[in-house]
Amino acid sequence: MFRGAEILEKVRRERPLIHHITNIVTCGDCATITSSIGALPVMAYALEEVEEMVQAASAAVINIGTLLPDRLEAMIKMGKKAGENGIPVVLDPVGAGATAYRSKAALRLLKAIEPAIIKGNGAEIGFLAGVKGVKISGIQSIDAGDPLESVKRLLSALDYRAVVAVTGPVDVIADGKRVARVFNGHSFLPLVVGSGCMSASLMAAFPAVEKDYFLAAAAALAAMGVAGEIAAEKEVTGPAEYKVRFLDTLFHLNPQEFSSRARIEIR
Amino acid sequence: MFRGAEILEKVRRERPLIHHITNIVTCGDCATITSSIGALPVMAYALEEVEEMVQAASAAVINIGTLLPDRLEAMIKMGKKAGENGIPVVLDPVGAGATAYRSKAALRLLKAIEPAIIKGNGAEIGFLAGVKGVKISGIQSIDAGDPLESVKRLLSALDYRAVVAVTGPVDVIADGKRVARVFNGHSFLPLVVGSGCMSASLMAAFPAVEKDYFLAAAAALAAMGVAGEIAAEKEVTGPAEYKVRFLDTLFHLNPQEFSSRARIEIR
Amino acid sequence: MFRGAEILEKVRRERPLIHHITNIVTCGDCATITSSIGALPVMAYALEEVEEMVQAASAAVINIGTLLPDRLEAMIKMGKKAGENGIPVVLDPVGAGATAYRSKAALRLLKAIEPAIIKGNGAEIGFLAGVKGVKISGIQSIDAGDPLESVKRLLSALDYRAVVAVTGPVDVIADGKRVARVFNGHSFLPLVVGSGCMSASLMAAFPAVEKDYFLAAAAALAAMGVAGEIAAEKEVTGPAEYKVRFLDTLFHLNPQEFSSRARIEIR
Repeated sequence: MFRGAEILEKVRRERPLIHHITNIVTCGDCATITSSIGALPVMAYALEEVEEMVQAASAAVINIGTLLPDRLEAMIKMGKKAGENGIPVVLDPVGAGATAYRSKAALRLLKAIEPAIIKGNGAEIGFLAGVKGVKISGIQSIDAGDPLESVKRLLSALDYRAVVAVTGPVDVIADGKRVARVFNGHSFLPLVVGSGCMSASLMAAFPAVEKDYFLAAAAALAAMGVAGEIAAEKEVTGPAEYKVRFLDTLFHLNPQEFSSRARIEIR
Repeated sequence: MFRGAEILEKVRRERPLIHHITNIVTCGDCATITSSIGALPVMAYALEEVEEMVQAASAAVINIGTLLPDRLEAMIKMGKKAGENGIPVVLDPVGAGATAYRSKAALRLLKAIEPAIIKGNGAEIGFLAGVKGVKISGIQSIDAGDPLESVKRLLSALDYRAVVAVTGPVDVIADGKRVARVFNGHSFLPLVVGSGCMSASLMAAFPAVEKDYFLAAAAALAAMGVAGEIAAEKEVTGPAEYKVRFLDTLFHLNPQEFSSRARIEIR
Repeated sequence: MFRGAEILEKVRRERPLIHHITNIVTCGDCATITSSIGALPVMAYALEEVEEMVQAASAAVINIGTLLPDRLEAMIKMGKKAGENGIPVVLDPVGAGATAYRSKAALRLLKAIEPAIIKGNGAEIGFLAGVKGVKISGIQSIDAGDPLESVKRLLSALDYRAVVAVTGPVDVIADGKRVARVFNGHSFLPLVVGSGCMSASLMAAFPAVEKDYFLAAAAALAAMGVAGEIAAEKEVTGPAEYKVRFLDTLFHLNPQEFSSRARIEIR
């Protein structure tokens, strides 16, 4: 069987705890998708508890969507403790490049916590990689640049100590040795507010149970895309109904169907 | 007619204001279910306004799901003012036992504010009661222990000055004199992210209009369970669609149907 | 064609960025409706970034739903910078009149930032206008008073330097020279938690692309109402399903249908 499907089954069997420090806009969506895939979500960001919480978790998500200074301190504290304990952290640098504050925060996190996976849209990763010409409007990638170039440059800057992923019509994931392209997905997915944040939660649930973070990250994005495709097969009234359908499709995603539909190219 | 149905009708007639200090993940869900049952939700947690807001309310909810130090101070301030004014407070000690910070906060709240109702899953209440062997993963009860033992121990520790409820496949509610078991519910409900938090909102709307808090708490959990059962009668695509259906079923819940379906055993 | 429909088309074509500083309860809804109408939402409230973020935006929303002192400072900072740059700000004084803290905050915002549009329910605007007898329970208008009187009084107090709108069964919008009444809407809309906050987001997306803020505000409320009407034409299970349907109807709202259904009276 496709390794991604084995990882999915392991998530459902082991129900790993995924500790999130995320934003106020999509935190409910992140909790929901974590639960849909079979893992357990917990959101906690008090400085007083993040270290203890993350040690009980199997993976963590850091999302800077509605960042505040004390949340950033909590993220760093949590991320460092995760690192000490070999717990993979997914960093979603939402809006990096949109303001100096977010950009600096994202770069500071990259240095301070050594995330296992960095996931962003083209503009966010392009910005972190120092690629010129990428453009972001708020949190929306307007000019994504060349995702592969962004991924490679950021990997190099990080001495290849992370998996870097750019989401888009074709997702690009790399770890310095391998490059994966995920062709699954649907044009409705980016219309769903929170879909980017939700994909980071999936990208934490998979490495929570699989040591090959590169493969886990690619499989998570494939699961997102496959569920997005299946959800679009029956008519929906629009993005809001599609979101409900998508989450329920993911909940029921059959490992065999996941295997047969996943379109991942690894080189 | 079943007393619970009378309470439901009174909620709809009087539209009590329910003041929440809750978490960032499920606050929208708590507002929605409060509105679905016919009450008015308000969320307010600035230290500057919680006392004034709770005095305008008929009941209050304190939920420590994404606790921060200043929120805890607001909860205590609000809870004390509620107590002075005879306004019932429902405490939902989300994640108590998962970190020392949450555990201490929950215990501090128990002492500082004398909640009318304490509602949690088996692990949370077991932890507060000092029962050994209960286990929590984030906010998910993994080993719930014996709910009745937890309820009884916590009641004893609180000198029976509260109603204590453990939610689960069978909900257990007690006040030291009476023990209620609510057999309503559906296996889909725990799959809905926010269902625990939402049940606390219902458990505030009912005592907002009914002085017998024990009966109000049991009736609220029965309403939750009955709506959960009815919502599952028609096919749903999964937990996300079920959540929508559940909320709408509660909105339309007929007092007669509530009466005939409620399965509450009181001893 | 109806000017409102032209504005709608312009929103979809230009995809303006709408910067929100809003509450924790409905921020996901505000992001979703902004996206549904074709604009780009961003939520950011760190003091460190609000000035830079709002300068990149075409309009902004300030909503005091779950206000905190540091959020208020961020709102003022953002609002002032918006004013310096001619970026319209919509102020939604959620719960003004419910507590002294909210009331003072709303009045302080009115003075400090000169919002382009002030939008509230009857009680909120009545309170800000100093009208006696209006009544609010939490954030719910209980006695809305005479909306036109409230609008006129507040306009006078503000030296007519804003558009003021009172939402209700008939929305009333005025700028001192013109008074618009919007007759569109549906009784299900106020049952949707977040509908008030969402209407403020629409009222920012429209002036983001249209300099006549009065017309933009009226057209936005007409779009809300028309979508609300169409969404109610097919059976729904209740407010939760209706919310999904409403958002999807707005997403697909056809300019021609918007034109033919809009019922705006301007005097």
